[in-house]
Amino acid sequence: MELPSSTLAQAVEALSSLPGVGKRSALRYALHLLQQPTDDVLLLSDAIHRLTTDIRYCRICHSISDSDLCPICASPKRVQSIVCVVENIQDVMAIENTQQYRGLYHVLGGVISPIDGIGIRDLHIDTLLSRIQQGTPAPIEEVILALPTTMEGDTTNFYLNKQLQPMGVKVTTIARGVAIGDNLEYADEITLGRSILHRIPFGG
Amino acid sequence: MELPSSTLAQAVEALSSLPGVGKRSALRYALHLLQQPTDDVLLLSDAIHRLTTDIRYCRICHSISDSDLCPICASPKRVQSIVCVVENIQDVMAIENTQQYRGLYHVLGGVISPIDGIGIRDLHIDTLLSRIQQGTPAPIEEVILALPTTMEGDTTNFYLNKQLQPMGVKVTTIARGVAIGDNLEYADEITLGRSILHRIPFGG
Repeated sequence: MELPSSTLAQAVEALSSLPGVGKRSALRYALHLLQQPTDDVLLLSDAIHRLTTDIRYCRICHSISDSDLCPICASPKRVQSIVCVVENIQDVMAIENTQQYRGLYHVLGGVISPIDGIGIRDLHIDTLLSRIQQGTPAPIEEVILALPTTMEGDTTNFYLNKQLQPMGVKVTTIARGVAIGDNLEYADEITLGRSILHRIPFGG
Repeated sequence: MELPSSTLAQAVEALSSLPGVGKRSALRYALHLLQQPTDDVLLLSDAIHRLTTDIRYCRICHSISDSDLCPICASPKRVQSIVCVVENIQDVMAIENTQQYRGLYHVLGGVISPIDGIGIRDLHIDTLLSRIQQGTPAPIEEVILALPTTMEGDTTNFYLNKQLQPMGVKVTTIARGVAIGDNLEYADEITLGRSILHRIPFGG
């Protein structure tokens, strides 16, 4: 596809770097923007620009924040003694959306993956361990591991558990099982197997 | 969905103004951008910004251009005596991609639509008529109407034909019919009807 303008071509090229956006969608976005009021287009350009300048990360949990502390770490209403360890910020938002968790988080920023060259030092593991050692602002009693059920997630879980156990902190992991509303016959064997193995008291 | 940062929330809001992009995709885009090198994000922000400053329109055909004349109008290789009238720039690109057309274009910038408040004066109809009247740089012998087959497109076709006929220019319209590879039984009646009515000599 040959574009009649290099400015348009550059916009299409840049927009198609977004995940799941091909050249065709990128062109659609660019032509749409050309038809919008200048102010709206500048708003988008500026909002993207500010992602590089104004975004900060919470100094305790490494989640996205507008200030030094994220709203969750700064809230006196959250249970300070439980920390849920997640891979990324999306996971924090997913758990927050359930409205079932009132503790704190710790965003690792990835999982251990030798193939991708991600080692222990590339993740926020040291700050997790020092959070527990220092016990500030409150002693941490439980660490919930909510990492993905992949080889890399399991490796990270295993490593974290080995580090956390000697610290006398309770280490748990989120329940995996057949999703609510799903038919047993369509569940994969490993998930269904775990659901039976980790069955809970009726009404629990 | 509550976002932990107002900068992120504004980026999501702005990105979700793109056509077909919901809040969820916009969030995915924004979080993706946060993980990219700053230079790449600035490249996108800048490319969008330049859509408001650097895009020009061809003074003859109103297609997008980097300069006063678009590459098609400026090319001596194009047949100067045929002008294809289209609704928008996307249509120019679609026809160019077929590599079957060597004439010029005229982008109306829409079709007559009283419901949307688009009248004759809102479209580039006057410049089309003056192109034909002046006959520069070369006399125009044929005008191909390639507007959409909607009520609005038909209205615009009708109006243009009425204006063009007295000027002694040949007015044609693109063939509509059953698409190549399509089964007759699945074609809609109007399209199939036209295909029969406008049948062409075998091998033509």
